[in-house]
Amino acid sequence: MKEVQERIERHIDAISKFTATPGKGTTRLTYSKEDLQARSYIKEKMKEYGLQVQEDGFGNIFGKLEGTLKDAPSVLIGSHFDSVPNGGAYDGPAGVVAALEVAGLFYKNQLTPKYPLEVIALVEEEGTRFGGGLMGSRGIVGLLSEEEFKNLKDKEGISTEEAMEKIGLNSSLPKKRDPKTIKAFLEMHIEQGPILEEKNIPIGVVESIVGITLLEVTVTGQAGHAGTTPMDHRSDALVTAAKIIAQLPELAIGEEDGTVITTGRLNVFPNGANVIPEKTVFTVDIRSGKDENVLNVIEKVKELVMSYSENGIHTAVEQLLYIKPKDMNQDIITLLKNKCEVLEIPYCSINSGAGHDAMVFSDFTDAAMLFIPSKNGLSHCPEEWSDSRHMEYAVNILYEVIKRLTEVE
Amino acid sequence: MKEVQERIERHIDAISKFTATPGKGTTRLTYSKEDLQARSYIKEKMKEYGLQVQEDGFGNIFGKLEGTLKDAPSVLIGSHFDSVPNGGAYDGPAGVVAALEVAGLFYKNQLTPKYPLEVIALVEEEGTRFGGGLMGSRGIVGLLSEEEFKNLKDKEGISTEEAMEKIGLNSSLPKKRDPKTIKAFLEMHIEQGPILEEKNIPIGVVESIVGITLLEVTVTGQAGHAGTTPMDHRSDALVTAAKIIAQLPELAIGEEDGTVITTGRLNVFPNGANVIPEKTVFTVDIRSGKDENVLNVIEKVKELVMSYSENGIHTAVEQLLYIKPKDMNQDIITLLKNKCEVLEIPYCSINSGAGHDAMVFSDFTDAAMLFIPSKNGLSHCPEEWSDSRHMEYAVNILYEVIKRLTEVE
Repeated sequence: MKEVQERIERHIDAISKFTATPGKGTTRLTYSKEDLQARSYIKEKMKEYGLQVQEDGFGNIFGKLEGTLKDAPSVLIGSHFDSVPNGGAYDGPAGVVAALEVAGLFYKNQLTPKYPLEVIALVEEEGTRFGGGLMGSRGIVGLLSEEEFKNLKDKEGISTEEAMEKIGLNSSLPKKRDPKTIKAFLEMHIEQGPILEEKNIPIGVVESIVGITLLEVTVTGQAGHAGTTPMDHRSDALVTAAKIIAQLPELAIGEEDGTVITTGRLNVFPNGANVIPEKTVFTVDIRSGKDENVLNVIEKVKELVMSYSENGIHTAVEQLLYIKPKDMNQDIITLLKNKCEVLEIPYCSINSGAGHDAMVFSDFTDAAMLFIPSKNGLSHCPEEWSDSRHMEYAVNILYEVIKRLTEVE
Repeated sequence: MKEVQERIERHIDAISKFTATPGKGTTRLTYSKEDLQARSYIKEKMKEYGLQVQEDGFGNIFGKLEGTLKDAPSVLIGSHFDSVPNGGAYDGPAGVVAALEVAGLFYKNQLTPKYPLEVIALVEEEGTRFGGGLMGSRGIVGLLSEEEFKNLKDKEGISTEEAMEKIGLNSSLPKKRDPKTIKAFLEMHIEQGPILEEKNIPIGVVESIVGITLLEVTVTGQAGHAGTTPMDHRSDALVTAAKIIAQLPELAIGEEDGTVITTGRLNVFPNGANVIPEKTVFTVDIRSGKDENVLNVIEKVKELVMSYSENGIHTAVEQLLYIKPKDMNQDIITLLKNKCEVLEIPYCSINSGAGHDAMVFSDFTDAAMLFIPSKNGLSHCPEEWSDSRHMEYAVNILYEVIKRLTEVE
């Protein structure tokens, strides 16, 4: 199987060169010149593997292998091909490349499925250019309306439609897709964390994509002169925030494995060295594969924060985001695990701590994901790297599973 | 003495109207139109009280009552007349007004001193326009060179000399003053803190102006994805910073009364809600009337910070500023307290937590300060307010002390 591994490496290498920041990682914004270059490459490879290529009104790419059943729903496999600024070569494209090579095996072995197979390459998963993220998949399932899509603009004020037109895409093509046309969605993605590498296991079968809750905590105290206000006269909004943040990790560690809590953003007002902080605002990001754990932690954070609302300090918690964990389809999970065993490829169950297009599809069709290890757990940086051998394992597993799902005769 | 109190109120009211932000507190930047208006008012009043008016090459104003001794050094009394943006009517001008009314009593009582009395009104104490602060007093004692002064520019790039010229001031007038020409410097100022008001004492005799130390602490960890990095794999620069900041107040409370510690400025990098903080940088401002206390706290902060340099976290402390506490002149302090007792005005000893022009003069001449209460301890805001009765007490005390220092015959 050296051949497949070599093709994977060539694809990854080729697509990684379509970057606006050569030498400084991958920067491929949706509807940019680099999008067009990567898009042309992907479409060309789809054609080489005998797939019929189409694009939709969002610029998502579909390479279809027709099935023998008339008007039957498709098994979709793929990922996104945009990147964050100065990101890596794998987050997104690795999943597109794996899907291409699954189709390559169908082509090589001249297989004819009953249900169509569609390799898909999605736009704007990262949300780097137009914000929000998961744009391509949300568009397909109808979670992003035509109207909302048209109103999205980048930092320069360029709208989605204008940007599409610039690289020759047609935004008047069909957009939303009837869920009845989709039988399943499968995605391979890099883990973006350290777990598989540390366990030395090449394949993670994703059980669920974690729920994401984002809280914003505001601590309001009393500004004062750093020199003239005695210690016992202070209502210091930062000292109070610090006491809260120092205790947050324990709240997650008390829950099941995989529950995480993060304060990533914190702003102090007025933020002058000689002024006692009047206000501190910080985020609390809570994620877990089980909704029960998420709800427990939210409750504990609220209790902790409110317990500091005293002695001239006012504390408040606002919930900015609450997305429930999404379970992947249990039947496909079982199929994936069986094929790992048959192929003697070590695997383990894993949760996804990051959001993915599979999360969006999971409410509309049977969705499943495979993870491969990320070197040093890194992603969203030029050092992002995964082993093409692991990708080849994933291709082989997915090939077997998709043969089953498309009911190859 | 109702007459003096009324005059004080008229002066404060008149000067407060020279603001660039009417209705939103006092904004009087050095060498602005409002500076010129306040300057004209102060010079006019000096003349009414029989003083000879002069300005120096910085725009500082001097109103001199000659003494009978030939070439004898002057007793200086005054404060600054610039303000912070949207500040109050008292921080600075109250001390200029008190000095004017002391001169007014000399004039009314037709006193002739042996040593000259000089009422002084200083520029740019706050450092709002040209940065640094204490500019007028540093210039007089020679701590700000001609060269340094010329190179100072405001945010718009306007130099000190250009700005002076615009309001008709002459920067080529003499600047540095020979310390031999100064016998003493006295300043009345608002407390800018809550101590006198809470004790219900109208006069604070300043024992020392606190030393100011500014440390900058940098905590460096490892950035990571908020969703994909397990809790036991994190080196979170903000959680570590929070643990440190939560413990800082105790380090000051362990020292003598009046020792204060403040983290006013804190910045998180990269400061994104879904990224584990890689770096947190924060200030630690330490002030105390006794150098021993300052040094103890610096040592304890360094120990605390360095104790967290482990488990993938690196901590570092840099000292940005270290100014020793400045003791006021003990002979004048004794004189001030004696006069309070004679006049039956309640007083107490107090330290100044903020910097003042008297701090600069204290290295070159005998310096002393009186504080009057600040309503609710507030300053640097439109709500800043002090009682004209307390200012009148200060005028009476200073009048008696200055009669002694100038050796009125």
